[in-house]
Amino acid sequence: MADGSVIQEKALRTFCETVLTKLGVPPQDAYVTTDVLVLADLRGIGSHGVARLQRYVTGLKEGYIKPTDHSTIVRETKATALFDGGQSLGQVVGKKAMELAIKKAKETAVGVVTVRNSNHYGIAGYYALMALDHDLIGMSMTNAAPLVVPTFGRTAILGTNPIAITAPTSKETPFVFDMATATVPRGKVEVYNRQGKAMPKGYAVDETGADSTDPARVLNALAKRLGGGLLPLGGAGEEFGGHKGYGLALMVDVLSGVLPGAATGLQVYGDEKRPDVGHFFLAIDPAAFRPLDEFKSDMDRIARELKDSPKAAGQERIYVAGEKSFARMAKYRTEGIPLGPKVVENLQQIGAELGVAWPGA
Amino acid sequence: MADGSVIQEKALRTFCETVLTKLGVPPQDAYVTTDVLVLADLRGIGSHGVARLQRYVTGLKEGYIKPTDHSTIVRETKATALFDGGQSLGQVVGKKAMELAIKKAKETAVGVVTVRNSNHYGIAGYYALMALDHDLIGMSMTNAAPLVVPTFGRTAILGTNPIAITAPTSKETPFVFDMATATVPRGKVEVYNRQGKAMPKGYAVDETGADSTDPARVLNALAKRLGGGLLPLGGAGEEFGGHKGYGLALMVDVLSGVLPGAATGLQVYGDEKRPDVGHFFLAIDPAAFRPLDEFKSDMDRIARELKDSPKAAGQERIYVAGEKSFARMAKYRTEGIPLGPKVVENLQQIGAELGVAWPGA
Repeated sequence: MADGSVIQEKALRTFCETVLTKLGVPPQDAYVTTDVLVLADLRGIGSHGVARLQRYVTGLKEGYIKPTDHSTIVRETKATALFDGGQSLGQVVGKKAMELAIKKAKETAVGVVTVRNSNHYGIAGYYALMALDHDLIGMSMTNAAPLVVPTFGRTAILGTNPIAITAPTSKETPFVFDMATATVPRGKVEVYNRQGKAMPKGYAVDETGADSTDPARVLNALAKRLGGGLLPLGGAGEEFGGHKGYGLALMVDVLSGVLPGAATGLQVYGDEKRPDVGHFFLAIDPAAFRPLDEFKSDMDRIARELKDSPKAAGQERIYVAGEKSFARMAKYRTEGIPLGPKVVENLQQIGAELGVAWPGA
Repeated sequence: MADGSVIQEKALRTFCETVLTKLGVPPQDAYVTTDVLVLADLRGIGSHGVARLQRYVTGLKEGYIKPTDHSTIVRETKATALFDGGQSLGQVVGKKAMELAIKKAKETAVGVVTVRNSNHYGIAGYYALMALDHDLIGMSMTNAAPLVVPTFGRTAILGTNPIAITAPTSKETPFVFDMATATVPRGKVEVYNRQGKAMPKGYAVDETGADSTDPARVLNALAKRLGGGLLPLGGAGEEFGGHKGYGLALMVDVLSGVLPGAATGLQVYGDEKRPDVGHFFLAIDPAAFRPLDEFKSDMDRIARELKDSPKAAGQERIYVAGEKSFARMAKYRTEGIPLGPKVVENLQQIGAELGVAWPGA
C-alpha cells in the first residue's frame, strides 16, 4: 500500500469509537459497531470496514440511524424471535439478535431470530462467527440496497445479499464462509474503472441489460439511475448458472426481508428516512445431533480431505472457506491494517469535523 | 422428442410402483419413491426422474438399498431430530424426516431434521415443496457422490450438493428454488459429448485441473478415476466466484453430512455396500414472525416487482424460481411426460426382467 497507511488495530478502534461516541452513540454500542467494522478490515473485506464509517456518520447526523439502541423484541417463541430494530445501528441490533439466536440454540437446539427496521449491519460473517465461541453452527443473512439485476432484467432490484455460515472444528481452522450473492462487489467494478481497463463479462450489465465490459458505463448508469447493475453469481443469463445466483439473492431477501416484515427489493433504502433493512440469524447446536467432539473431528476430516487433495496444474494450495481470512487477521494484528489513501483521507476529514485526532497524523 | 416417447403420468407411476413392489418395496413406499421420481420429470429435472430408476433397481438387487423402511430416530429434541436411515430408500426416509421437521415447525416454529446412513433421495425440491402445503418455509439439502472439484483442485471431492428452499405466496406462484451447487450437471457435459461439441469454459476441469472445453476428455478422466470433474457455481478459480460455489457445496456437506454424522466428501458412496448419504431438512413457520397473510402478500410483492421490472434487450420475461417448473408440470400433466429413447429403452429392459409391462408397448 505505497500511498496509503498502515494503522495499528488498537488505534483504529479508538478512533472509530471516539467518532461514534461524539455522535451520541453510547460507549458499549460504539465498541460493537467498531468491532464489526474493524473485523471486516482485519479479515480483508475492506469494502465493509472502516471505509464505511462515513455512511454511519451520515446516517447518525441525518437521523435515519438512531445513536441509542431503540430495538425491541416484537414476537418470541422458544426457538424464534422477531426484533424491530427501531432504526438503531445495524451492528448493535445484529449482535443482540445473534446473541438471542445463540441463547435459543443452547436451550432449544435451534434459534432463528429475524430483524426488521434496521440499518446496514456490516459483514454478515461477524454474526455467524459469534456462534463459534459457543460451539454452534451460525448463520446470518441480510438484505441490502438494490444493486443486483435479476436474470434477464436490466434494473437492479436485489441487494448483494450475503450468506454467512460458520461451523466449529477441532484442529483445523473453523469453517467460516461469507459470500455475497453477486459475482463481484461494486468495488471491483470501480477498480476496473479507476484503472481504465475492460472488465471480464459476467460482472455487470449496462442500462440495456447487456453483459458489459465497460465499467464507466455501468457506474454511470447506476449513478444516474438509468438501470444496469451487478450480475448475480453465475453471470448473465442461464448458461453459467446466473439464475442460481439470482435465486440465492432472492432466498436471502425472503429470509431476511419478507420473514421479519422488513423492506424488500427496491424498498430497501427506498425511503431515505427509514432504510428498513432486514436481517436473518440462525444458530444450530450440533450436540443435539451427535457428540460435539465427533462433529468437530469430522469437520477436520473433510477440511483435510479437501486441502490434501491433488492441486490443479500451477496451483499450490486448496483453501477451505475462512483460512485466508484468519491468516490475514493474524498478519494485520501484528503488522497493522493497511488502508488506502482515499479511505485515510475520508477518515481524517471525519475526525477533523468532530475534533477527533487521526492516529496516523 | 422425435425418437423418444410421451407417457401419461398415471401409466408411468403404475409402471415404477409395480417395478419397486416386485423388488420387495411395500406399496406405500413404492408410491413415495415413484412420487419423487415422477415429480422430477414433471418439473423438468429429467436427470433425477425415472431415468434413475435403474439405480434404485440395482441398489435393491445388490442389497445396499433395503426394500423395507429400516429408519429409526436416534436423537430428538423439541425442535430437532436425527434419523439413521438404515440404508432404506432415500425418498422414504427423506419424506419421513421432512414430515417430522414440518410437525416440529408447527409446534415449535422451527424444525431441523437430519439423516445419516441413507441413499440417494432424488430431487431436493420435493421435500422443500412439502412445506408449502402447511404454509411453512421449507428447506432441504443432501450430499452426493463426489463429482465437483474444489477451487484450485483437480479431483472431485464434493457432490453436486443441492440446496432447495420454498416459501408460500398468496396469488403468485410459490417460491420454489432448487439448485445444484455445480455450474452444470454431469448430464450437460454428456450432451456436449454426444453432439461432439466443445463446452464453454467454466463447466468442468480435466485430470490436470485445467478448465476444459473437451467433454470427452472430462468424461473419460472421470470414468477412469484419473481426476477432473464438474466446476462449482462460478467456474474455475476465483475470478467469477468459483470459490463461492465451492463454499456452498461444502456448506451442504457440513449440514447434511457432518451434522448427522453421515459420510462426507469422498466417503459418500466410498463403501459400495453402504453409501451413507446424508440429508438436511428445515422448516420454519412464518406465522411465528408475522401474520401469515402479510408474509404471503409480501412474497407476492417481491415476485411482482422482479417480474414487472424492465427486461434486458432481447428478453421478454423475468422469472421467479419455480415458475418454469410449475408451468412445465401443468403441461406434462395434460400432454404426458416426454422421455428420451435411451430412458425408455432402459425402462423397458427393467420391466422385461421383472415381468412388468411397459405402458407404451
